[in-house]
Amino acid sequence: MKTAEAPTVDVFSATSPSRAALELVANKWAMLLMPALRDGPMRNNELLRRVGGISQKMLTQTLRELERNGLVLRTDHHSVPPHVEYALSDVGRPLGEAFVAVGRWAEAHHRDLADARRAFDGQERG
Amino acid sequence: MKTAEAPTVDVFSATSPSRAALELVANKWAMLLMPALRDGPMRNNELLRRVGGISQKMLTQTLRELERNGLVLRTDHHSVPPHVEYALSDVGRPLGEAFVAVGRWAEAHHRDLADARRAFDGQERG
Repeated sequence: MKTAEAPTVDVFSATSPSRAALELVANKWAMLLMPALRDGPMRNNELLRRVGGISQKMLTQTLRELERNGLVLRTDHHSVPPHVEYALSDVGRPLGEAFVAVGRWAEAHHRDLADARRAFDGQERG
Repeated sequence: MKTAEAPTVDVFSATSPSRAALELVANKWAMLLMPALRDGPMRNNELLRRVGGISQKMLTQTLRELERNGLVLRTDHHSVPPHVEYALSDVGRPLGEAFVAVGRWAEAHHRDLADARRAFDGQERG
């Protein structure tokens, strides 16, 4: 008799709930917002300045989805003028660290990528 | 007199070439394929089995873009029957490691995310 099995949590399995968790954060805005929050809580306008190219609509939408899934904590200080801050949660923090590594990789290697593209496209034409 | 400045490589800058490098890999298939290749070279059909839910078309397209940018090396052994393998390059390897960390995070915390969503959606209704 087989004992009851926990559902698979292998991210390589298309139907695993861990795959859904991966898909939630597999986009550039989450990959930039999480590292942006790494050094401490930030307000909406600070994030808008920090993450170049993000629109207010996309920022609102991404923050809300991250908050909804418990990766980001939203704190409303209920003050006048309004003071709302966003911060990484304990669950979100290690993901923020992994995305910091991705950002550093991009900064360290973008020239290697450009060189590779040139070589590849040259071969294709040759 | 200002000295010539190297172009910014800050991934938070929308126009930085490092941002383009980040965007290239900010998708779930790259985030699964790179870790899949971490334990050694794999063939097309092995990758198709390993990365659940990927279509042949998407696999071909993603592998080609990763190869073009020098993250993945394609080796054709020019044998009969054909034997083509894909492997991480030295440039791709550290990114593969970062994405392994993302996958492990998803496997470790998908339940926390589900709990947070339930709480959030309950508050919304309440």
